Formats: sequence, structure tokens, C-alpha cells
Amino acid sequence: MANTFGHLFRITTWGESHGGGVGVVVDGCPPRLKLTAADLQPDLDRRRPGQSPLVSPRKEADTVRILSGTFEGRTLGTPICLWVKNEDARPEAYAEMKTKFRPSHADFTYFAKYGLRNWQGGGRASARETIGRVAAGAIAKKILRERFGVEILACVQQIQRLVAGVDPERVQMRAIEANLVRCPDPVIAGKMITLIERMRAAGDSVGGVILGVARGVPAGWGEPVFDKLEADLAKAMLSLPAAKGFEIGSGFAGTLMTGLRHNDPFRVRKGKVVTASNHSGGIQGGISNGQTIYFRVAFKPTATVMREQLTVDESLRNTTLTGRGRHDPCVLPRAVPIVEAMTALVLVDHALRHKAQCG
Amino acid sequence: MANTFGHLFRITTWGESHGGGVGVVVDGCPPRLKLTAADLQPDLDRRRPGQSPLVSPRKEADTVRILSGTFEGRTLGTPICLWVKNEDARPEAYAEMKTKFRPSHADFTYFAKYGLRNWQGGGRASARETIGRVAAGAIAKKILRERFGVEILACVQQIQRLVAGVDPERVQMRAIEANLVRCPDPVIAGKMITLIERMRAAGDSVGGVILGVARGVPAGWGEPVFDKLEADLAKAMLSLPAAKGFEIGSGFAGTLMTGLRHNDPFRVRKGKVVTASNHSGGIQGGISNGQTIYFRVAFKPTATVMREQLTVDESLRNTTLTGRGRHDPCVLPRAVPIVEAMTALVLVDHALRHKAQCG
Amino acid sequence: MANTFGHLFRITTWGESHGGGVGVVVDGCPPRLKLTAADLQPDLDRRRPGQSPLVSPRKEADTVRILSGTFEGRTLGTPICLWVKNEDARPEAYAEMKTKFRPSHADFTYFAKYGLRNWQGGGRASARETIGRVAAGAIAKKILRERFGVEILACVQQIQRLVAGVDPERVQMRAIEANLVRCPDPVIAGKMITLIERMRAAGDSVGGVILGVARGVPAGWGEPVFDKLEADLAKAMLSLPAAKGFEIGSGFAGTLMTGLRHNDPFRVRKGKVVTASNHSGGIQGGISNGQTIYFRVAFKPTATVMREQLTVDESLRNTTLTGRGRHDPCVLPRAVPIVEAMTALVLVDHALRHKAQCG
Amino acid sequence: MANTFGHLFRITTWGESHGGGVGVVVDGCPPRLKLTAADLQPDLDRRRPGQSPLVSPRKEADTVRILSGTFEGRTLGTPICLWVKNEDARPEAYAEMKTKFRPSHADFTYFAKYGLRNWQGGGRASARETIGRVAAGAIAKKILRERFGVEILACVQQIQRLVAGVDPERVQMRAIEANLVRCPDPVIAGKMITLIERMRAAGDSVGGVILGVARGVPAGWGEPVFDKLEADLAKAMLSLPAAKGFEIGSGFAGTLMTGLRHNDPFRVRKGKVVTASNHSGGIQGGISNGQTIYFRVAFKPTATVMREQLTVDESLRNTTLTGRGRHDPCVLPRAVPIVEAMTALVLVDHALRHKAQCG
Repeated sequence: MANTFGHLFRITTWGESHGGGVGVVVDGCPPRLKLTAADLQPDLDRRRPGQSPLVSPRKEADTVRILSGTFEGRTLGTPICLWVKNEDARPEAYAEMKTKFRPSHADFTYFAKYGLRNWQGGGRASARETIGRVAAGAIAKKILRERFGVEILACVQQIQRLVAGVDPERVQMRAIEANLVRCPDPVIAGKMITLIERMRAAGDSVGGVILGVARGVPAGWGEPVFDKLEADLAKAMLSLPAAKGFEIGSGFAGTLMTGLRHNDPFRVRKGKVVTASNHSGGIQGGISNGQTIYFRVAFKPTATVMREQLTVDESLRNTTLTGRGRHDPCVLPRAVPIVEAMTALVLVDHALRHKAQCG
Repeated sequence: MANTFGHLFRITTWGESHGGGVGVVVDGCPPRLKLTAADLQPDLDRRRPGQSPLVSPRKEADTVRILSGTFEGRTLGTPICLWVKNEDARPEAYAEMKTKFRPSHADFTYFAKYGLRNWQGGGRASARETIGRVAAGAIAKKILRERFGVEILACVQQIQRLVAGVDPERVQMRAIEANLVRCPDPVIAGKMITLIERMRAAGDSVGGVILGVARGVPAGWGEPVFDKLEADLAKAMLSLPAAKGFEIGSGFAGTLMTGLRHNDPFRVRKGKVVTASNHSGGIQGGISNGQTIYFRVAFKPTATVMREQLTVDESLRNTTLTGRGRHDPCVLPRAVPIVEAMTALVLVDHALRHKAQCG
Repeated sequence: MANTFGHLFRITTWGESHGGGVGVVVDGCPPRLKLTAADLQPDLDRRRPGQSPLVSPRKEADTVRILSGTFEGRTLGTPICLWVKNEDARPEAYAEMKTKFRPSHADFTYFAKYGLRNWQGGGRASARETIGRVAAGAIAKKILRERFGVEILACVQQIQRLVAGVDPERVQMRAIEANLVRCPDPVIAGKMITLIERMRAAGDSVGGVILGVARGVPAGWGEPVFDKLEADLAKAMLSLPAAKGFEIGSGFAGTLMTGLRHNDPFRVRKGKVVTASNHSGGIQGGISNGQTIYFRVAFKPTATVMREQLTVDESLRNTTLTGRGRHDPCVLPRAVPIVEAMTALVLVDHALRHKAQCG
Repeated sequence: MANTFGHLFRITTWGESHGGGVGVVVDGCPPRLKLTAADLQPDLDRRRPGQSPLVSPRKEADTVRILSGTFEGRTLGTPICLWVKNEDARPEAYAEMKTKFRPSHADFTYFAKYGLRNWQGGGRASARETIGRVAAGAIAKKILRERFGVEILACVQQIQRLVAGVDPERVQMRAIEANLVRCPDPVIAGKMITLIERMRAAGDSVGGVILGVARGVPAGWGEPVFDKLEADLAKAMLSLPAAKGFEIGSGFAGTLMTGLRHNDPFRVRKGKVVTASNHSGGIQGGISNGQTIYFRVAFKPTATVMREQLTVDESLRNTTLTGRGRHDPCVLPRAVPIVEAMTALVLVDHALRHKAQCG
């Protein structure tokens, strides 16, 4: 079950960074949805390394192929298997990793768990695993948009100490996609680019914060108790490589307010219940309240750095390891479509669950 | 499935704040574990309102009864049903809530979802639901302690702007339980108590941050991809009432470092792989690395305040609502055993999953 | 998960024959369904031992209590916990079973699996576990009847060599409930009663076959591949104590026909697709086709007999055991409401699943 | 979830008979198991059409490719994706099926459920879906054999009225594979072949019964209540195309005995508990008792016949349809490895579940 996400709209990803490829099986997709590879490729291209001088130079087209589940351009209601071949396999770049564990990567923990590991490029722990999520998420976003009127987007809000002011109610995809770092504030975006270039030159890396937004979610999605909407979003986000934190609505900053200030007063506007503020982030008691859902995800600085570091090898000897090969000094711009995908996967699953029990 | 948590050590909670009681069914517990109600009651007492002048004056013994799953003081391997009666039902205290939605509570969203709600004291969204979690968590903690040598604890690290320095490696249960706010720093604890009393006087409330710690977890627990240990912890924590944020290891602060500084160098000590720093929080690639696991959970200020607030009623009219009855100006001290319980539930589930696949 | 059944309408049973009682948690029930204990008690009474001179003389009222999930006579959408106390505990009747394994009971296998067992009356393997199923099934039947127009019934079709001709299209609950053995053919029913009385006198027991029927299921319920409707029915039925076989539609007898004869020709009647015969039993490719669903379940003769039998004890010594105490020479009449319950649980789950994906 | 089977050893199949191929993702496989395509191909070859003049002349190599989850010939513990391309696509053979529903196939029910269908060769309901099961089952059989000493086999016991006497304790794979119909009794096998050839000449078809056997299963596998070993086997078998019945141990015939005769006396032999008879079929109370597990599965005569039949079309008009193209007058010989695969999948899942809770 470790590789499956969702209850009714359920995805199972598979594949390692080196081997036959990576992919996903999407089970539970509603039938008769128009779907071709052209619906999936744009998000895969946004996720892909080598899009810009800023990001990983791995050169792969990441062309997705639909192996099952559609017929004459529509979903059948049967499992949709999506596959992206691995093309840029360069095992020789990883020779040193065969015996040494890269610090703050999953090399050691996979070895501790399984007693062996695919040491070529991270294996299952590689960011390539997220290809399946992005492809499945593109389907989820399409369903949310076409059948429920829900819009999903995400953007880079912070890189290291550079923070952009972003309004979840108003931020537009166009502004986000207007620059290489996917930050809708062009001035901060420029500074972020400069910082990332400096990190590349230094062989070092930076992290930051992505803002995720869902607009148009009706009141009533989400479940009480364990499968609260924010709980499933938190799990979805913390399941992403390099994610270290999640906060919804007021989040950690909300702990500084008092209850009287933090509570969101209900008001009636145009015959609809709204809240005058939105510290709740669009969710109360685990269930959407009709306001905009927004949350933030912290990503640590990329573990791969082009410098010598202390580590150990499989024979339990102290040694050093110097990063070489691809260098992606900041993964956040590429993580934006992944955050969107996971958001969409959580929401579409809850949309179907709500329909089943309360529809 | 909304009310079930875990895969192999699986709990299902049930019950509303008013009605026949609250409880939990624990499925998958290993057989032959010594278990009586005396193993569960202490944590329920720590969670219980009315323990101190600081916390909710609801007067209930919260005495747990084991309805099934044990025989002659040992677990049978069959489902353990635990039940705590509701005793302090005072529906009259909630009369106004029958038609009005309390701001930032789940009243409105439950109504939006289900078309009806138990308006007496929060119903299913009441904090009483966590009784089942705490009781089940006490079993999980016992298994972790006795069969795996794992120690779980949590403490209040921050209330509003008052922050205690706590070392996850060294903090002791004794120091935590030494004061009313469960903060191991006695000086800060004193200030926290003063703050909470001021809030009570003002009819207002405060939130803060709980630190959760697991020591002695062996390397190898957790799953790659979706069921990463930190992902399951994040879900567990965000499923708690009033939780708004989660961070593991360096968390949001880690975004300010560079990769070179953030990476945890591996070293060999006494024939065992350790890390020289622990920004990872004991988990890498979703799998425990043998170091101490620690994380922080943000709780918003309690939504129940004893003041007049703007809201709407079921007929969609603007109105006001004044809190009355019980007032719990800070839930964090009582949330400490709940955080411990959820941590234990996540870990014991992964312990069994690890045994199944890799044992 | 062993004690949970269903995906969207999900039940978890708990309890042993001796101890605090038996019960069930029903999760995923649609909200706003009228529900009180009076909706559940009739089926529990039909299942109850001691209804007639034919069945087990265990004297228990089996009064069900709703502990959670309803409010003012309607379901809340939250988990419904149902509880029936154990009253007729007579551990002394089981003293010999403390060390000896009853042949063809679960005593030995529970001991082999768990290393201990509740030897009083079968523990978790007791037929009392089915109380939770019947109570939950009564809710499922109510939903199917009121919201989907589906009628569920079951009857005894065969006891040992006595076989009644029953037409699944026409059999009525009234005829079934008209006699003690729940066989709609009064002549055969009379012979069955005579046989059972003879078995009681001989201290022996008999088994037979129950026919299950669901009428009014629309075309389209069920899932391809693993969760075929007949697969879930088969699992449901084989999960019943003493069940040894399941067949849908033509079943084992269908193997004697050729394909040309066995195929059900489609015809259009009143603008609706029907089949001219119904060897398929109302399901094709795992999905209902709109025709009556019918199936048969084989139950072995009750393992409890009032005679001396060869067996072994916990110390692995050969010995003998003589049954004493309650004697239920034929469980089939009491199993009828259990078969109905399981049928309803499977169908309501698939009704909700169908709504989620295709609704 | 419809396309996923198992809890800890979990398979998800995907693919239609026409399209990019069929496959399976196996999640939860223990790491470090030696595994190459050569371990999977033999069972796929046994399942493959065109093996003999008796079976479907579809000409496909069904060569399996491992896309993920292994490294240097060993399993990684990560998901194993297996893929078999479709090669023999002849959509023109299915032109008439574009608008007409084949009797007793899934054409109509898929259309009723999803509102569209892949009419080329059965789509998802095609027997090609079982390729994924057989490939995954080959892994499960290998684990059972190498790590638990369990042997799985199946054979054709009956075709129409031709019944072979087979002893579950003694039947050998060699005898089963010695003839085209996989019936270990050579005399009956010869008659079966004659019968099938006559059916082919007549454009008609026959069904029958497959016996499944698992030897060497230790006492203690299986779960009480819903996930009884026989319940999971029943579901597994009824999920197979054309399966109409399942019986374990004495099955339907057991209803003719009395309890005294049917009960299996326990005896101690060589310090081990055994049973003097095995009417239970190796399972008591849902848990294996250490004796040989055996069961029987009824398969209806193949629905595809080469004759004109009454049916309806998508416009709800009565019409006729004449089968053409491939004709497989008896699928049972090819179903043998599928029954083995499903048996192995059930058992390995329960082996891991047992280890998790009781190991």
C-alpha cells in the first residue's frame, strides 16, 4: 500500500530512476472523460528537468504514453496506466554511490530497510517517481475543473530568505508561469534567480516554501476525524521528496494570535455563508467551508551538493563523498506542478467520497 | 474509512460528545500482550478536562472499559473495543448553538456536509473523540516500549510568544509532567500559566506548539513514496482538532539554510551509523535512520471564547453568538497525550508493516 | 482489517461470546436516514437462539443499543456503534474445553495462531459475532429498500437430502417466515422439522443450503476484475461460520450445460434490456445486469454434537471430548437473516461505489 | 480499488485486450528475492492461448517485461511493474460487437455501468486481464515455495460430465502437465479431449471444475471473521472470468453428512496435531490447521460460441449475433495456472499478515 494514494481516485506509482521507466496506474477515474496524452504532457514538461538554466540538466523528453484505460479519446472507467521511459541513464555518474551513502539522501535508509538498493541515481527515492504523480494529477485537475469548477494552482512563495507576498484569492497562473522560478512577484522572482545562480556557482543549494491554492471548492468536502481535508493534504505534501513542513491557513503564525482575533466570523453574502477572514484556510473540522483553501509547504535545500562531505560506506567506514554530475541548486520551481498534482489528487478523492456518502 | 486510522494496527473511533459515549475498536493488536484498563487510564486522565484550574472544567471521570479483545489480562489478537461513557451531558448549555454556527468550529461544515448535526457540544467534532485515540495510543505505546524499546513523549514547547528551548535527545517525561502546562522548562512554564490565566479572565484563548519525540526507533521503519513516516505523522497530527501546522526536523526554519549546512553527515560510532547533526529529524526518504525522531505541531487558539462574535444561523441570517459554559483557554497541555498517542499509532503500524515485508 | 468488511459502507465487528458483549461500528452510512433500535431488533430476534424448540436454547434477549451516530432518530453520517451485551455466560459449561480442542471448531487454529484463546464458548469464533453483521445488515437493507428499491431475502432451500423447489423471482418473505425452518415450501419444511428433531434426539446435527436473493438491483452495480459482485458475495458468504460453498446463478450445475444452452439471450422488453433465461444469476462480468441476483450457500452440519469424539488437548495428548450444554442440531434457519445481512452489506457498498465513480 | 487485490502483497492489474497491453503492479514483495522474467514466463506460457489445438488460436508470445522493482536480478522491495504487450489486435473481427451485446459476456453490463466500452475483444473483461494475475502469482508461488515451503497446484477435475478422481494429498504437477487438458487422470483426460474437439466442431463450448490445492501451509494462517482464508479464496476464485461456484473441503457434498460423520477428529502424530479426516479442507474458523487445503471452482461453459444467438444492440433493438473468429471451446486447461496464481496470491498475503501480527 506504500505506493498507493487515495481511496476512490487511487493512484499507484512505480519505477526507479534507472530501469524500465516510471509510471502510474490510476484506478477509479470516472468514465467518459476526454483524455489523451496531450492533457498530461504540459504538466510533465513543467516538472521536467532541463527546462531552464536554473534546473537539473538531465535531458529527457519525459514523453508520457497511455497504456490502458482510454478508448477513442475517452476514459473507460478502467485503470489508466501511464508510462514514461527512462532515457538518460548514466550509471557511471553514480559509481561512487555504489558503496557510499549520500548525506541526507535515502541511500542509507533504503539499505537499512531492504538490505539492498538501486544505487543508480536514487532508485525509487529519485524525484523521477513524481512523474507518475504529476501525470495522475493532471487527470485529477481536469476532473476538478470540468466537473466541479475547482481551480488548483501553486507557486514559489519563498526561497531561503526571499519572501514574496502572494494573495491566495487573486494569484493567477499566468503570473506564476511568467518567470523561471514560478514566483508571481516579478521583483522577488528576479532576486530568487540571482540567488539560485549564485548557489549553482558555489555548488551549494537552497530550499524554500511553496504556496498551494484551491479555489471554488464547495462547502462539505472532507471527512471528520482522521481523513480531514487538511490531514490528507498534509500527508500528500509531506510525502514529497525534501518536504519538511506543512501549514494550513494561519499555520504556525496563527499560534501568535488570540482566539478572538483568529476566529473567522461567518457572514451571509448573496445568500451564501462566507467568512469575513480566512485564518482557517478554507477548512473547518476537516471539511471545506466554501472559502479558498490555501496552505504552505516547506522544502529543505536540495541534498545533492557539488562539494565534499563526510559520510560512511556500506562497510561502515568513515569516508567522504563529493557530489558530481547533475546539480539542481533549487528544486522548488519544478516542485510547483507536483504540489498542484497532489492537491488535485486529494481533492478529487474527497469529491468522490462526498458524492458516495452524501450525494 | 474516515474514522479508521492505520493499516495493520488499525483503530476506528466512534462517538459524539453527547450520546452513549465515545470509544475505539483496535484491530490488529499482537496477541498475548498484558493489558488491563489500568494500562489505559493514566493517559486518559492526562487528557481529561478538569485536571487543573487551567483546563476545561467538564467533570467526567472518563473511565475506560474494555468490552472485548482480552482474556485473563492478555490480548487475544481479536478486536479490542474500548468504551468511555458520556456523563456530563448538559444539552441546555448548547441551546443557542442549535440554530447558530460557532465561528471557526465545525458546526457549519458538518451541516453543509450532512444536512444535519448533533448541535450538543460539537457532536463528532468534539475533542471527546480523541479519547479513543488516547486509549488506543496507550496500547501502541506499551507495544513500542515492551517489544521494540521505543520511547514516545511530547511536551508544550510554545504558547503564543512564550517559547521554551527543549532538546529532543534529552527531555524527560518527569520534567514535562512536573507542571500544569506540560512544558519542561519551569521558568517558561510559569509564564505560560500566567498567560493562560489572563486569557481565562479575558474570555479569550491562546494556541501554541507541541514538540513530539520518538527515541529508539531502529533504522528501517517507514515506507518510501506515499506512506513516508513523516507523511503519516503529518496526517496524524493534522487530524487533531485545532492543528494547523506540522514540521519535521529542521522544518520551516530549515528553508533558511543551504544544503551544505543542512545535510546531516553520516559517521560511524560504535559500529553503528549515526548522523553528526539531525536536521532530518530522524527520517530520510520516508524511512527512519536510527536517530531521534522529532517534530512540531502548531495548534491555533481555541475557537471557543467567552465573548460575543459575529456569525450566521441555519436560516442564513447574520447574527451574533456569545460563548458560554466551559472555557478552555488553552488546550495544549491536554493535547500532549494525544500527540503521543498519534505518534505511537503511526510508529507501531510501521513497525508491523516493516516486520511483514522485511522481517 | 480482518474484522472490517466493505469499502464505503464499512463495518467493523468486535466481541467474544463471553466478555463485555458483541457489537459493530458502521462507518460511511449516509446521513439523515431514519434509524432507531426498532429498525434493528427484528432481524436480531430472527437470528437469536432460543426462538423455537428447534434452535439453540441459549437464553439471551440480544437487545441492541445504539451508542453513537444517530441524533433525534436520524443518522448523522458519523460512525454508528451498536452493542449487544452478553448475558448468558456459563463458563462452567466450557470447563472441559479449557484444555481440549473441539473437533472441526476453531479452538485449535486460534490457539495455533495466537498462542492463547478465550475457551469460553468459542470466543471470537462464536456465532455471536454475527450479531454485529445482522445489526449492520438491517441498516443496509433499509437503505437498499428506501433509497434504491432493492429487496433482499433468503431462505432455507435444502437440509441434508431434503430439497425445496424455490423460484428466486417469486419467493416471498411471508412464506419463508411462515415456519420454523424458514423454508417456503411447507411440505418440505415439515419434513425438515422432523429431521432436525431426530438429530436433536440423536445428539447429532445436519447442514444444508440457503438461497439468497436480491431483486430490483439496477444494471451497473459491481466492479470489473477483483471486486466483482459475485466475488464479494462469495467472500461475504464464505466468511460465515460453517459455510463451505457458494454458487451464483447456474453454479456447479451450470458445468453440465453447453455454452449455447447456458448463455442468456438478451431481449428488449418494455424498452428495457432483459435476459430470456437467468443462468448468470443477475451478474455478468462482475456487474449486475438488472435481472434477479440469486446464489446458494452450503453450510456443513454443525460441529457441536452431543456425543463423544476423538480429539487432542493443549499438551498434545490424544483424548476424547463429549459435547454438552446447548445443542443446535441445525443452524440454517437462524443463518437466514445473516445471509440477508451479508448480501445487503455487499450491495449497499457497491451502490455507493457505483455512485462515486459513475453517478 | 476494484483493480487491486491483497493487503500486504498487493497487486493492481491494468490493461484491455486491445490497446497498449496488459500488466500488473506488485506492491509489498519482500526484498532480495531472486527474480527475473524467466521466473514468470513459464506460467504465462501455460496460460497463453494457442498452446495446443484445443485452445484459443490467438497467436501472441505474451512475453513479459519487468519495468521496475528489481535490480541485478533481485527484488528491491519497491513496486514491480510487469508488462505484456498486445500483439494480435484484430479489431475487424469485432466489428459486429461494436453495436451488439454478446450474450452472457460483459458487453452489456460494462455499457450499462460506464456508458461506453472498448468493444474490441472484450476490453477490460477479456481473459487477457488474467495475464497480470498469472505473472504476479508466479512471484507469490516462488515466495511460498522458497520461504515457506508451501506447494501450490491445480488441475482440471471435471469437464461437463467427465469427472476424474483426484487425491489432493498426492496429485503431482507432472501428471497434471502430462496432457493437453491438465487432468491428472490420463483416461478421463483422453475423453475430455475428445469432448472438447466435438464441441469445437459443433461451434459450442463446455465448462467444468478445477481443483486447487495448497500443501505445506502451516497452522495459523488466515484471519477470523471476514478475512477467513476460505473467504479470501472464494473471492479470488469468483473474481475469475466464467467462475460460478466455489467450495472448500467437503463443500456442497458435505451438506449430506451429519455432524458426527463430518467432524475431523484431531489426533497427535509425531508430536504434531493432525486430523484423521479432512472434510474441513485444511481450514477451520478461517485459519489453516496444517492439513492440505483443497477447494473446487466451477466454470461455466465459455460464452463465446460460433453460432447464431438472440441478443440486442445499443439502440435497444432485438437482433441476432453470430460468433466468429477465435473459438476456445473449453477454457479450463488454461485456467489452471490462473487458479494457482490466485491461490498463491491469497496465501502469500496471509503469510505476511500472520507474520506482522503474530510473528
